[in-house]
Parts: sequence; structure tokens; C-alpha cells
Amino acid sequence: MMAEEIIVYLQREGASRGRTTGPSSPSRQRALAGTCPDPSLDSSPEHREYRARGRPRMKTVIVVHGGAWAIPDMLAEASMAGVKNAAWAGDAVLKNGGSAIDAVEKAVRSLEDDPSFDAGHGAVLNIDGEVELDSIIMDGETLATGAVASVRNIANPVSLARAVMEKTDHVMLTDRGASMFAERIGIPIADDLVTELERKDWEQSSSFPVGVEKFFNTQWGHDTVGAVALDSLGNVACATSTGGIRNKMVGRVGDSPIIGSGGYADNRSGAVSCTGHGESILKVTLARLILFHMEQGKSATAAAEASLQYMGERVKGCGGAIVVSSTGDWAASFTTPCMAWASIKEDVLHCGLNPKEDFTERLK
Amino acid sequence: MMAEEIIVYLQREGASRGRTTGPSSPSRQRALAGTCPDPSLDSSPEHREYRARGRPRMKTVIVVHGGAWAIPDMLAEASMAGVKNAAWAGDAVLKNGGSAIDAVEKAVRSLEDDPSFDAGHGAVLNIDGEVELDSIIMDGETLATGAVASVRNIANPVSLARAVMEKTDHVMLTDRGASMFAERIGIPIADDLVTELERKDWEQSSSFPVGVEKFFNTQWGHDTVGAVALDSLGNVACATSTGGIRNKMVGRVGDSPIIGSGGYADNRSGAVSCTGHGESILKVTLARLILFHMEQGKSATAAAEASLQYMGERVKGCGGAIVVSSTGDWAASFTTPCMAWASIKEDVLHCGLNPKEDFTERLK
Repeated sequence: MMAEEIIVYLQREGASRGRTTGPSSPSRQRALAGTCPDPSLDSSPEHREYRARGRPRMKTVIVVHGGAWAIPDMLAEASMAGVKNAAWAGDAVLKNGGSAIDAVEKAVRSLEDDPSFDAGHGAVLNIDGEVELDSIIMDGETLATGAVASVRNIANPVSLARAVMEKTDHVMLTDRGASMFAERIGIPIADDLVTELERKDWEQSSSFPVGVEKFFNTQWGHDTVGAVALDSLGNVACATSTGGIRNKMVGRVGDSPIIGSGGYADNRSGAVSCTGHGESILKVTLARLILFHMEQGKSATAAAEASLQYMGERVKGCGGAIVVSSTGDWAASFTTPCMAWASIKEDVLHCGLNPKEDFTERLK
Repeated sequence: MMAEEIIVYLQREGASRGRTTGPSSPSRQRALAGTCPDPSLDSSPEHREYRARGRPRMKTVIVVHGGAWAIPDMLAEASMAGVKNAAWAGDAVLKNGGSAIDAVEKAVRSLEDDPSFDAGHGAVLNIDGEVELDSIIMDGETLATGAVASVRNIANPVSLARAVMEKTDHVMLTDRGASMFAERIGIPIADDLVTELERKDWEQSSSFPVGVEKFFNTQWGHDTVGAVALDSLGNVACATSTGGIRNKMVGRVGDSPIIGSGGYADNRSGAVSCTGHGESILKVTLARLILFHMEQGKSATAAAEASLQYMGERVKGCGGAIVVSSTGDWAASFTTPCMAWASIKEDVLHCGLNPKEDFTERLK
């Protein structure tokens, strides 16, 4: 269900919101922060259009990833097909004049629905054999953001994260609170997230450390999905979603739903979605680090590579990142053995899986 | 209970860890990240001592805060006494040759135990009348960090966060998982965290938005506590702990336990603990932003003030931060009406509550 559909749900069903706080309008957000109005914070479509007048239309960009890890041969083809589908889905939103935030949500939902990836359907199991999902979404225009952590039985955590952003006064809800909110706004329970393959792999796997060692060297683990986009009005956005690492402790949260680590978006620099060893990404706040490098003049590729190299040197962690700058410069970089990724800009699709791979297709 | 005491608990009680992953030694952390050994990651006391040879002993610094908000007159005296006690507690650790991480844990435990502050005893209640606590601790030498979010019935979340850092392969545990871990390592349940005053205030308060509006303008809300320290070996650390905002949604997580937002520590620049409007702090990853400014040459005060001003301009949020650089430069800055803070460096205690206030006491 898209966030728009959730709103329809609420209107149609007249769902009682109980003690949930109401929709978070810009004026209400200002009241919450106890400060004076700032018109630049109004993100209504009319106001976006107003502000866009006189600005040149940007060439749109979407970049997606399906996780940085040692992707086994048996999953290579499905992973490539999955990231290309997601890029097409996001690109279609942008081509129709949709916003960057709509595009990244659409792309990540496509990856969550694809059982080849460790997010939504296809998520890995924690040490107790449960699915616990994390996600973040962020709007680079206003820095508005929403995230959920350790939420169970939700098919599309990215849309729940968006609902946190748009329908509450908060940024992040966890576990029990995230589930209560999902139920309150009418998101159905999904009890079919676990694939047969994952159940089998989980039963065969022993303890978490073995899982993580193998995670970077064999076919035993999966990883995060994500998307970044630049829309025609020059706004950027990011979204990230994951089931985490197989055999993780109950309640473990990695980088994915953490602002500045799993993702960050700011029109003044660009948008990033990260993947890889979550605990390492957190320690260096990888997404924010990449954007700091870009603020200081580095290209998207140079910023991503410098930050991943720093993470390797400082905390010995591997990972990957997709990046788009607010001028349309983009990158897909990784220090893991593989990362499935795809991008579309000016009707040209790029994609790859192994290091230095860059296949190109011209779209009609 | 200090982290050391938790270890004793484990040894004494021979507590079964079930499927919990074991202590996270440096070699194991390396194996997890799938990379080669790096001696600089060894944080054992012997290794710290080895590396410290030849380095000049640093003059130690501790800075603490009791939250940036509109502190009412009735709490002013208790708040000042509380932050001074916490600074003394942290300073005593440092004077005895203790580490920065021990000092910030000790200082924050002192604030958590003081019912004047919104952390541990004295925490505010969520919309369902429950205490949900968040905390982070971070070691600037190794970037090792631990955090807990939405954990209930724990007197000292900062020590649970430290246990996550030292006894698991993870960085963050939430809600149910954090409680399971606390139980497994023998941390007792605390059912006396709610003060009579808080119960009364919660009953009188209506919905969250009213609470937050008042939070910045009247006596209706509390806020976070935190500490930063520099030890004699030149290592920095930070810790932050909170009960959040009264009437928050169940499962709401603000900035406090989020790396880069509620706190960050890095020997290459310094350590920061933040407080204020959590959702605003998250949007600008305030702690990391302050340290980026310092990496580019700004003083602790200039970096904190520039970052708080940016937060005010960009997302209209108010807050405060305490900072120590790895050379001993320190700051306590805020854009809220008040922030109770105290620092000790070279036997001189500074403290304040209102803007531009700086009382000085020479310690014997």
C-alpha cells in the first residue's frame, strides 16, 4: 500500500486514531518546535510548484540497490532483474512528474515485494526465527523523515516509515509502537513474508557470528535494499529497507533505519542509501559522511569511495552506497564482493553486480 | 549497576545466555566485519597503556548537561545541584586515572538516579502512561558504541547501552529485545522510576502536541541528560540518556540513542551529547554536524553555536549541546530558554542554567 492509499484508507474507513497524534502539518510542526513560521517548510504540491517557478526543470535520476554482500550465483540473475524493475518503477514516477519521495518509495516497495531481497517478502529471520524489519525514508527539501525499527508482519515497512513522517509528530517508532501505529492506520498484517528458502537456511545456520562471517563470504546472508532520486523540481530523497542479518538478536537495529547512517537526503548536497555491515556503517554515520564530502566539493563517486575506504580503515567494515547529488551526479560504489544496483537518467539504464561492472541499456 | 558490576553478575550467577551471542572481543569484531586484524582496535587496558607511552598525559575534562528546555523555577536549584554532582562523579573517575567511557557512564548514572531529570528515575510517561527509555554511549578511540531504545523498567539505561557495546556483536537493541537482553545479563527490573509529580503532571496533560508546545515554554516537560569526557590518555567519550517527551507515542524514539544525533565521540575531533527537540536534532544529525565543524577548524563553542543556529534556521528547532575536543577545548551551548550544565577541568568547576551564565568554583 502506498502512503496515498493509506490516507484513502483513513478517509474511507473513518478509522479511529485513538490517542495517536494527528497529521503533522507544517504549521503544527512549527508549533511543536516552538518557533515562528517559515514558508520554505511548506511542502504542499501547490507550494512546491510555486517555488519551482523560474527554476530550470532538472533531468531526473533514480538509483537503486539490492544490498552489498557476497551474492551467490543462484541469486545473481534474480537480483539484477529485481533492481532493474525497481529502477523502472521509480523512473516511471519521475517521468510522470512525480516527486523524488514518491519515486524512492515506489522503487523500494518493488524491492520489498521481490523475495530475492532481504526486505519485506524474503526478509531473513532473527535468532528466535522471527522477521524484524527496519526502514527509513527522507525528503531532502524539508529534511522531513520517518523510520520504523524492529517492526513485525508488515509487507512494506518503507510505506509505514512514510506514514510516520507524514501522520505523526515523530521521526521514529520501534517494535510494539510501530506495530500499534500500523494497525491504527489500517495497514494489514502480512504473515507470508518468510520464504521457504530462508526458513531452511535459518534452520541450517547456527549462531549469529557464523552467519555474519558467511554473510560476507558465502551465500548465507542477505542485505538491505534502497533507492535515491532527484526529481524534476530539483528535490532529492532516499529510502532504505531491510530484514537485517540472519540470526541477529531480537530487537537488533542496524544502520538501515538510522538517519545519517542508513540514509540521508538534503537538497543542499544530495541523497544517499547505504548497505553492508550495519554496525560499521553506524560507527562512521556513512550516509552523512558521504554528503559532507560532497558539500566540500567531491563528486558523488569520489565521496562514496573516500567514505567507504575510511570505513574500511577505521572500523574494518565493508559496505556499499548509492548516491545522487542535487545536480544529478550519481554513483553506485561498494567494497563488498558484489552489490546489485541500477540507475536511470535521461532514458539510459546502467546496472551492475560485480566490481567495475556497468551494463548500459537505452530505454525507448 | 555499573558495566563492571554486570560482568561480576554474569560470573557470579553463571547466567545462561541462551542464544545470545557472546562477548565481542576485538578479534571477533574483526571476524564479523570479514577483515584483517588491526591492533589499533584492541581496547584492553594493557593495550591502551602501551599506546599511551610517549604520549603526554592530557588534562582531563568532564562536561554534563541535564537537558535543554524551559526549566521552571521550582526545579532550578535541584537541576544545578544535580549537574554539579554528576560532574563531580565523572571528575572523580578521571582523577583516579579512569577512562573517559567510565567517567561518562558514572556521570550519566548519577543524573539517571536523580529524580529531577527526565532519565531513569524521574522519566516522563508516554501516551499510555508508561516509561520508555533511550540511551547511547560511545568510545571515541575505537568508535565502539552501544544503544538501547524504548526499553522499560531499567534504572540505568546507560549501563545497558554499555553492555550492548561490550557484550554483543550489535550496536543497538530496541524495546522487547533490549528487555530480554537486560534480563539475560541479570539487570534487575525497576518498578519505582515514576515520580509522584510526573504521574500527576501526566494525568493533567492532555495530548502530545500540547505537551510539546508547553515543553519549550513552560514547566510541563523534561528532557535528556548527557556527559562528555576527555581522559588522561587523550581518549574522548559521550553518553546520553532520556525518558523522551511526555505523551510521546508508544515506541517513539528521539535523537538520544541515535548515533550522530544524540551523541558522537571520535578521538580525531571530540565528543558531543545533545538535548532539545529530538525530531529537529535527528533531521540535522546535530552531534556529527558539530564535530564536522570542529574537523574543519572551528572551536568547540563556535562549532556548537553554528550547528544550533543552522538547526534553528533549517528545521526551526531549539536545543543544546555539550562538547569536548580531543585537545580539551570544551563548550556548553543552547538555544532553548535554559540548560543546566556543569564542567570540571583543572580543578575548576563551571556551571550555569540561564543564557550567558557561567558560575565558577575552584575545587580543593
